[in-house]
Amino acid sequence: MHLVGNGLEMAVEGKMQGRTWTLPNVEGKGLCVNNSLCGSKVPFRSSDGSRHVSWYICGPTVYDASHIGHARNYLTFDIIRRILEGYFGYHVHYVMNVTDVDDKIINRARRNHLLERYVKNVTKIHTVIEDVSLAFEEETRKQQKKIIMTETELEKVSSSRQKEELDDKLRQENLKLHKLKQAREVFEKLKDEDLSTGNPLEILLSGDVADVLASQLDAKEGATVTDHEIFRAHAARYENDFFEDMENLGVKPPDVLTRVTEYIDAIKEYVQRIIEHKCAYAANGSVYFDTKAFLDSGHEYGKLNPWAVGSLGLSSESESNFDTKEKKNTCDFALWKASKPGEPFWDSPWGHGRPGWHIECSAMASDMIGEKIDIHSGGNDLMFPHHDNELAQAEAYHGCFQWVNYFWHSGHLSIDGLKMSKSLKNFITIKDALKKYSSRQLRLLFVIQAWDKPVHFSEAVMNEAIGKEKQLLNFFKIVKNSLKKACPEGDSLVQGLHNNQRFDNEDFKLQRSFKEAQSQVQQRLEDNFDTAGALLALLNLISAVHLYFEKMVGGNVKLLLVRKVAEYVTKILQVFGLSNASENEIGFGSDSSTKTDNAENVLGPYLDAISSFRDQIRAAAKAGVPKESILQLADDFRDRTCVDLGVRLEDTQGGSIWELVDPNILRSERDDKLQKAAEANLKKLESHRDRKMKDLEKLEAAALAPKEYFIEQIDKYSAFDDRGLPTHSADGKDLSNKAKRDVEKLMKKKEDEHKKFTERLNSNPALLQNLRNEIAELTSQITQLRPT
Amino acid sequence: MHLVGNGLEMAVEGKMQGRTWTLPNVEGKGLCVNNSLCGSKVPFRSSDGSRHVSWYICGPTVYDASHIGHARNYLTFDIIRRILEGYFGYHVHYVMNVTDVDDKIINRARRNHLLERYVKNVTKIHTVIEDVSLAFEEETRKQQKKIIMTETELEKVSSSRQKEELDDKLRQENLKLHKLKQAREVFEKLKDEDLSTGNPLEILLSGDVADVLASQLDAKEGATVTDHEIFRAHAARYENDFFEDMENLGVKPPDVLTRVTEYIDAIKEYVQRIIEHKCAYAANGSVYFDTKAFLDSGHEYGKLNPWAVGSLGLSSESESNFDTKEKKNTCDFALWKASKPGEPFWDSPWGHGRPGWHIECSAMASDMIGEKIDIHSGGNDLMFPHHDNELAQAEAYHGCFQWVNYFWHSGHLSIDGLKMSKSLKNFITIKDALKKYSSRQLRLLFVIQAWDKPVHFSEAVMNEAIGKEKQLLNFFKIVKNSLKKACPEGDSLVQGLHNNQRFDNEDFKLQRSFKEAQSQVQQRLEDNFDTAGALLALLNLISAVHLYFEKMVGGNVKLLLVRKVAEYVTKILQVFGLSNASENEIGFGSDSSTKTDNAENVLGPYLDAISSFRDQIRAAAKAGVPKESILQLADDFRDRTCVDLGVRLEDTQGGSIWELVDPNILRSERDDKLQKAAEANLKKLESHRDRKMKDLEKLEAAALAPKEYFIEQIDKYSAFDDRGLPTHSADGKDLSNKAKRDVEKLMKKKEDEHKKFTERLNSNPALLQNLRNEIAELTSQITQLRPT
Repeated sequence: MHLVGNGLEMAVEGKMQGRTWTLPNVEGKGLCVNNSLCGSKVPFRSSDGSRHVSWYICGPTVYDASHIGHARNYLTFDIIRRILEGYFGYHVHYVMNVTDVDDKIINRARRNHLLERYVKNVTKIHTVIEDVSLAFEEETRKQQKKIIMTETELEKVSSSRQKEELDDKLRQENLKLHKLKQAREVFEKLKDEDLSTGNPLEILLSGDVADVLASQLDAKEGATVTDHEIFRAHAARYENDFFEDMENLGVKPPDVLTRVTEYIDAIKEYVQRIIEHKCAYAANGSVYFDTKAFLDSGHEYGKLNPWAVGSLGLSSESESNFDTKEKKNTCDFALWKASKPGEPFWDSPWGHGRPGWHIECSAMASDMIGEKIDIHSGGNDLMFPHHDNELAQAEAYHGCFQWVNYFWHSGHLSIDGLKMSKSLKNFITIKDALKKYSSRQLRLLFVIQAWDKPVHFSEAVMNEAIGKEKQLLNFFKIVKNSLKKACPEGDSLVQGLHNNQRFDNEDFKLQRSFKEAQSQVQQRLEDNFDTAGALLALLNLISAVHLYFEKMVGGNVKLLLVRKVAEYVTKILQVFGLSNASENEIGFGSDSSTKTDNAENVLGPYLDAISSFRDQIRAAAKAGVPKESILQLADDFRDRTCVDLGVRLEDTQGGSIWELVDPNILRSERDDKLQKAAEANLKKLESHRDRKMKDLEKLEAAALAPKEYFIEQIDKYSAFDDRGLPTHSADGKDLSNKAKRDVEKLMKKKEDEHKKFTERLNSNPALLQNLRNEIAELTSQITQLRPT
Repeated sequence: MHLVGNGLEMAVEGKMQGRTWTLPNVEGKGLCVNNSLCGSKVPFRSSDGSRHVSWYICGPTVYDASHIGHARNYLTFDIIRRILEGYFGYHVHYVMNVTDVDDKIINRARRNHLLERYVKNVTKIHTVIEDVSLAFEEETRKQQKKIIMTETELEKVSSSRQKEELDDKLRQENLKLHKLKQAREVFEKLKDEDLSTGNPLEILLSGDVADVLASQLDAKEGATVTDHEIFRAHAARYENDFFEDMENLGVKPPDVLTRVTEYIDAIKEYVQRIIEHKCAYAANGSVYFDTKAFLDSGHEYGKLNPWAVGSLGLSSESESNFDTKEKKNTCDFALWKASKPGEPFWDSPWGHGRPGWHIECSAMASDMIGEKIDIHSGGNDLMFPHHDNELAQAEAYHGCFQWVNYFWHSGHLSIDGLKMSKSLKNFITIKDALKKYSSRQLRLLFVIQAWDKPVHFSEAVMNEAIGKEKQLLNFFKIVKNSLKKACPEGDSLVQGLHNNQRFDNEDFKLQRSFKEAQSQVQQRLEDNFDTAGALLALLNLISAVHLYFEKMVGGNVKLLLVRKVAEYVTKILQVFGLSNASENEIGFGSDSSTKTDNAENVLGPYLDAISSFRDQIRAAAKAGVPKESILQLADDFRDRTCVDLGVRLEDTQGGSIWELVDPNILRSERDDKLQKAAEANLKKLESHRDRKMKDLEKLEAAALAPKEYFIEQIDKYSAFDDRGLPTHSADGKDLSNKAKRDVEKLMKKKEDEHKKFTERLNSNPALLQNLRNEIAELTSQITQLRPT
């Protein structure tokens, strides 16, 4: 046969030759995403043609509580990661670093430590007041100096873009100065107040005042801090804090976590190889990247932000601690920093030092992923210098020209026109945000924003997100109600099929809206992950369902269709991480706060309650309340109720423990137990009966008159005396003396037994009959119990 | 800039010109599936290049209980449907018909009805015996005749394939004859036995005997059955039964259900149009498809099974009721059947009749989906004549040449070498199968079989499925345990991150096995839905995890990686419909039998158990066990434990009832209740104190020596006698007689009171002090309790 396709001719063997079958068209063009490396949307493809994609995301520098500016970045990429996996079917390998050694961490940890030490040692209040006042003066002077420098720089630049950036910087620095003034005013008031109402140190040294003092302490005594545990503990605390925040936001953990301090050896090797590749040089215990040598070897520097190359403004923050005189070119940046006193350090071929900020990501991403990364992402503010430097380092290391295929930058989040940042103190922590809004609402906020555009955080945008949430909630409520009405048994739809199922115009119309929405969602998500557009398509579909219900009042609603629509809406919400509904469930799923994501979690507290309640009842019963009835109830509860519920309840010394087990297994265990008990009972009855039968036998023997005993033995004896004792054996001979003694002895025994029996019979004439009755009763019981 | 892709050149605007970015390669070739229309595996594509695919599946003819041969078909396609949706991301529109008017339904319904009527009216046992004996003779003769006909046919044919088919048919017919003989033997024995031990009719007319009698009754009285409700009710009952079975098997309901009786008008129009297209003709009240005219217009007939075209053997069953003399060509088949007496019918341009078997699917699929269907599926046995006729009808109707793009046929299920079928009575119903195996085990059976190959059902293949289930269960148990050990908080992985996260060789090895398994699963599923191969890849991955755990004993296990692997295994099991785990959960999820899809469903039975247990304890306590302690426990359970669990437990006469309520609401209700009780208590204490204070006042008054009483009133009196009685008023005047009498009376009262007081004081010297203490104590209590 011929297969007619789009230029695709296929040879198919034998038997159906001559027949024609046409291969349908190739499907749509697929996903396109804005790539910072191109400055535009380009088709998305994995590097090896498979469904595997590697992704390296710049993780947090763990020095303080995370704010919703961070949430913006991690939530946004969590949504995109889920879309790639859940919608486009990619296997995403998501690697995130944690920067646990860095200027900010070092400073913060050292200052906290110095402040604690200061508070512990200071004795006089007026000393504190003097120290703080001095600190305010120093800090104010420093900040003013910064402003003047920025103003000077601003006068020099000409490009509008650079002007804009410096304007922004200036605005931020003025804001800092303003906040400093405010803090000082607060302090001035405080110090004149009555400090005896509490701990005067706590009153004086709170918030901004403490920061100012710590900054001064650090300037003077920072170098005395040598215990590295101080830095490690600080980083560990805020890393833990970060992952707790992420969990509370429903952000999936990374697949691999790379901590800088766990990769120091790899980083040193990485630096060494760049030196070997002639793209870096050591100077004064530090190592710098040689941007000129790099360019000369045919590479591009500043791929992401070419205008920023050479901009002192953007690179100064991370390089400020270094003597730029060590550098060969202005653009060169540190790969390895010689350590100063009061800083943690590691040994290296270049002396004591620590990794530069950018090198960690190149080294760790290369170690985990290799020489080709599908996706690299981070916040917009990391584009330059961090990501451009990272690319340069990796290209120099691998000798390649496109280390990363797709570079994605999330738009930053601003509040009151300024970027939310720790240093500006205009931030809302994730924990505070989660007090006001649910994690679902925060996620919805980012779903309705373009991932690569700025977000202006405000009550208004939050209300927009909450409004959309309400629309969705209302939709699920209505659909669930109509399902419940038609199918009172809950999730079974069998009853919902009893009406006429043939589609009429309204059904077809809704079916078309559904198909259209599915296409729209596909189209929107393929267009640079336009989640807002996709959500809009879902909301339009929801409107179509409302209209359908209106038109079908009293009519023949097709629940299969309505439920399918609701399942689809649920599915897309699941893809966005907005719903944790389980298979067959529609809606947002259970509230994340109640952790109902598996039966054990749901049931745990209830089962704990049952078992402990039961323990209490048993304890009460044991302590005096008539035991039997209460204990019987408790046993029945364990052996019947719980077994049927699929709960194995086991009594232990520490109280009963439970376990979820298939009810059939438990029933069969119980039946086994009952059967064994029944078998044991049967055995007991049988041995009881055996004993009784032996008794009966003995009694019956004793009932025989002794005289008769030998007379009956005609095979042994032939003549007897009056007492019934044999005198001659069966063959007519006299018994020997020994034989006579023996029969005499035996006769004595028989006479004794018979005497005893007669006495017992006198006191209980029914003796034998009773025993026979007992045996008959036992036999009857045994027969009934014995398995047939 | 230039985008260098696979022949794909893109123009990107302005700013980044001169820069080069290389588009990665196009991804793999995608899904290929065995298409019955090609007899081979071909690429799978939707007809319009979108992700939408329409699917029409031949549903059940609802005349009896479904057996596992049916389960094979519907479960297999349920698995494939889920893979298309859940793995390949298609939007599947799944339309299933229900054949609710058909020879089998008519016969079965009519026979049941006639048998019921017979049983109701027959009065003498010997009549029954005679009737049944006669029926056996008739039926045996009929069956013998059939066998002879098949044997004759077998002698005539030459092709090995036709021989094989007829051999099979002969085997089946001989089996039927054998069963008939067996039934007769049973009956012969029965009729000579004592029938007085029960209802003799019930004893005689059971099972096969009833079938034989019903067949004879039908032959004689069938034409008298005219109430169509008899047929409708029969079909409705077994349709409901079918969907219940499907639900119990976890087979998703179709998106659209088309019942033949709901499409009669559409079917008539469909037939009319085929007549108009000159591919059908009316004859004697029936309408036949004109296969010759169809071929002459350039179409192919018998696309799926060209060898079978003209085979009387295969087409005879459905056409047996018709006079083939009405047909123009041997291959022609009925589109509309003139009805005979005792059959339901509808008006039509051709007289009273009903749709032929094949036309319903063409008409309903065309109505719901249109002139192009992506996928059509059904059991292997439907290939000819049903599906070939369906294709011919639709092509004739639409004037198209490829109505269906992909025709998929599931391999049939055999037992003891024979196809499981209702007429052979060798079937295991789905309900019986589900008593022995879980729905998961049955589904696993079909997952490990090729969907398009025959399945030989046996204990051995079931044990293979159960063995695989055990491997999976064991894997999940081990992973869950290791997660639980590292993260005691359950589903939080934050603690699991505290160890060193850097990958060593073993981690990388497992990571590679994981990636390899993902690729394997993709490759296997893309290769004709090879679920068995995909499952094997998962089991190999599981072995790699076991090996990893072995190597890492006491080492630095990467839980992120292990959990990701377990999540992936879970996800693929979900795609196969084997797991209903929810977001973040790993494993098979909750047992389908426990219906855990929402909190009330999950908790209901447990809470019922708690409340009824509590009821029992309370009842026991009330019946005699010291009440207080037991009741206090029960109250505490209600007011503390349950409140904190979010359960409002309410005691009613009929036992306690529960309701799920936000714990905060319950707590505030409880606090309100407690506050009101506290207020009432406070009021009680206050009034108690007031009474005591009045007592004290009176006692203090009585304590005063009566002599002092008037003397103190210096504003009223100025002179007194020895007893202390006033003689002159304050202004020095003598008191009037009336005033004297009054003071005398009052003095008397005071003296009495004082005397009584003195007596009380004698018997209790601490009287006043005690009262004062009591008041002080009450005041202190009140002060403490009074809200501040």
